[in-house]
Amino acid sequence: MTTAADVLARCAELARISAHPEHLERTHLTTQHAAANALVAGWMEAAGLRTWQDAAGNQYGRREGREPGLPALLLGSHLDTVPDAGSYDGMLGVVMAIAVAQRLGDRIADLPFALEVVGFGDEEGARFGKALLGSCAAAGTWDPRWWDLRDANGVSLRQAFMDFGLDPDRVGEAARRPEELVGYLEAHIEQGPYLEARDASLGYVTAIAGARRFVVTVLGEARHAGGTPYERRRDALAGAAECITRVEQLARASDCIATVGRIEVAPGAVNVIAGRADFTLDLRAATDTERDVMWHALEEQLRKTCEARGLGLEVVETHRAPAVACASWLTEAVVDGIGATGDTDPMGLWSRAGHDGMAIGAVADIAMLFVRCFDGISHHPAEDVRAIDVERGLDALERAVVAVAERREAR
Amino acid sequence: MTTAADVLARCAELARISAHPEHLERTHLTTQHAAANALVAGWMEAAGLRTWQDAAGNQYGRREGREPGLPALLLGSHLDTVPDAGSYDGMLGVVMAIAVAQRLGDRIADLPFALEVVGFGDEEGARFGKALLGSCAAAGTWDPRWWDLRDANGVSLRQAFMDFGLDPDRVGEAARRPEELVGYLEAHIEQGPYLEARDASLGYVTAIAGARRFVVTVLGEARHAGGTPYERRRDALAGAAECITRVEQLARASDCIATVGRIEVAPGAVNVIAGRADFTLDLRAATDTERDVMWHALEEQLRKTCEARGLGLEVVETHRAPAVACASWLTEAVVDGIGATGDTDPMGLWSRAGHDGMAIGAVADIAMLFVRCFDGISHHPAEDVRAIDVERGLDALERAVVAVAERREAR
Repeated sequence: MTTAADVLARCAELARISAHPEHLERTHLTTQHAAANALVAGWMEAAGLRTWQDAAGNQYGRREGREPGLPALLLGSHLDTVPDAGSYDGMLGVVMAIAVAQRLGDRIADLPFALEVVGFGDEEGARFGKALLGSCAAAGTWDPRWWDLRDANGVSLRQAFMDFGLDPDRVGEAARRPEELVGYLEAHIEQGPYLEARDASLGYVTAIAGARRFVVTVLGEARHAGGTPYERRRDALAGAAECITRVEQLARASDCIATVGRIEVAPGAVNVIAGRADFTLDLRAATDTERDVMWHALEEQLRKTCEARGLGLEVVETHRAPAVACASWLTEAVVDGIGATGDTDPMGLWSRAGHDGMAIGAVADIAMLFVRCFDGISHHPAEDVRAIDVERGLDALERAVVAVAERREAR
Repeated sequence: MTTAADVLARCAELARISAHPEHLERTHLTTQHAAANALVAGWMEAAGLRTWQDAAGNQYGRREGREPGLPALLLGSHLDTVPDAGSYDGMLGVVMAIAVAQRLGDRIADLPFALEVVGFGDEEGARFGKALLGSCAAAGTWDPRWWDLRDANGVSLRQAFMDFGLDPDRVGEAARRPEELVGYLEAHIEQGPYLEARDASLGYVTAIAGARRFVVTVLGEARHAGGTPYERRRDALAGAAECITRVEQLARASDCIATVGRIEVAPGAVNVIAGRADFTLDLRAATDTERDVMWHALEEQLRKTCEARGLGLEVVETHRAPAVACASWLTEAVVDGIGATGDTDPMGLWSRAGHDGMAIGAVADIAMLFVRCFDGISHHPAEDVRAIDVERGLDALERAVVAVAERREAR
């Protein structure tokens, strides 16, 4: 089970584990999460890895190196998805890591480190709004305030832990110590159009941009749609619509990306002016400074827009992650790996998307291998990869592991 | 039970029949609908009316006039509400009609017509999107295509009828024939600021503006919020936001009112560009011509906006009601009634809000009495009326019934 065809078949098998029969949705601490962990654990065992689920629901496998108990080179990605997801974001990296462990086989016993594979339980944050819950637990950066986060059905993160069979009081046991880890290496689809535009199968990541996320609440007054003249209206949805338009205008004119992906209005009736609108705002830039300067401009614009309409405005920051640079020594191993596939001058990209490495960066050096994807599409069922790119990705990742070993030996 | 205090107490009692403990929501063919009918039927019986629920779930009471079987003067309004409603829209008119029947008491036996009171089961259309279901059944203008309308839980109108204990095949039995009705007279809160601005308790209605309602669907492509550059985005929510802003601009510059009260986006995740947005559009004007001219302008603007963004656009009209004029002879009786309260030059208004009379106008002459409400607020818990205005409203409505009788006698 170590070819690109095997990897793609396993991604398809994972994609069938979904909360919905017609589209893929697999979120944190659900029965689908448990089923995916069990399936992946079986593959890990078949690849010769010893497996366990940690105290936060992350699925691990490990094979010892030259001697038992050495620090581990950690390969992996995440197993959760957004709603109506594609089959590769996250999953591909976990399945490729398992295939590489199987390819290396007994050679792992000669490495100067243990090899571990991880499938993180939450990277997308689709269920509780907070991203990277799985990798933050592994990084030891868990914030106890997260226990009170609730999903769309009102279930708290604490309750979801217990329902999953986990003990919230023991989440600290999921934390890895820096001395346990050689580094973290993740393969992931690019989720952007740049490799395809360059006709390249693979690329390496220079840094992962930090995102800030907000919930913006516009407060107006619910009134009758017919009886209320314009001068008496304080229409929260009309205000939110203008806010969303302004956010797009400001971000387009900069090097930042701002996305409003969700909006809800109340009371939400065809003949009632909206009294309240809540929308999310996801903001990214190449550097934290650019991003924060843009946020200040956006916030000022939101305030102006709402004030002019007599609307209230509340903003809650739900997520902030600083940009994380990939470690040059570990990235050199990735470049070595890509070189082994024939591309000796590979493309370096900064990732506009967030990744588990942003959290794991707190306890280990990180590096990432990007795999070209179809038309830059991700977070969508049309997400697709080519077998040839996966094949080259497996060769590159395997070679990168060996290159890390050589670099460790040479020190 | 015939004073303003009694009427307000009954409105408060009705407002406790809600699908939600913390706010008022009572929609068509729910257990709350059944409970409201039962409560109202008891009040009707206490006022000396014989009661029945018709084949569409409307609650009736009747007392015979000078001889049994005469055509009826129908008083009433509706018993359903919008989500998070106030306590007077609809309810006040039903409760006032019952109080007037009780005040008239044995005098009804001298009238040249029977007196009927109705509480319609659906005027707002909050559950199935289509307004006036109750009064359309009573008017005999039921459209069989409505059977397939579905509520937010996917329950069809046909199923809801059966769940309520009604036989869909017998809905035609709810239809009133023109020769059964002398006219339809409804008291209702103004739902606008004009009576308050004039410091008047009561007003009469000249016409009810017709509304058109649409569901507008903007179709884009769900993609990753980080990885997708602006030039590759087809963001359905950004497009919908611009559409909503343009709708407001165009309507504000005209004499029309256009309201977007509901929006839903899919997939609706913080880090995914929206692939689809559906929003409602409610359009009203003083005349059908003004309204239709505005719709053509709005539709052209929506198409331009979506085309410029590479977005698809679909528009479905869900409701269209022509403006309905109040009958002058019946309105003169209302003016007589208001005159009896001391206001001999009452204000005439056209109603921007829709009312059951729009449907009943198909089988009977209609007229309406508007009662001043607090700050023009309706469709909101802050909806409020003053006891003095209700007291004058009862006097006016009672006098109007007598005035109708005098006009019938004089013919």
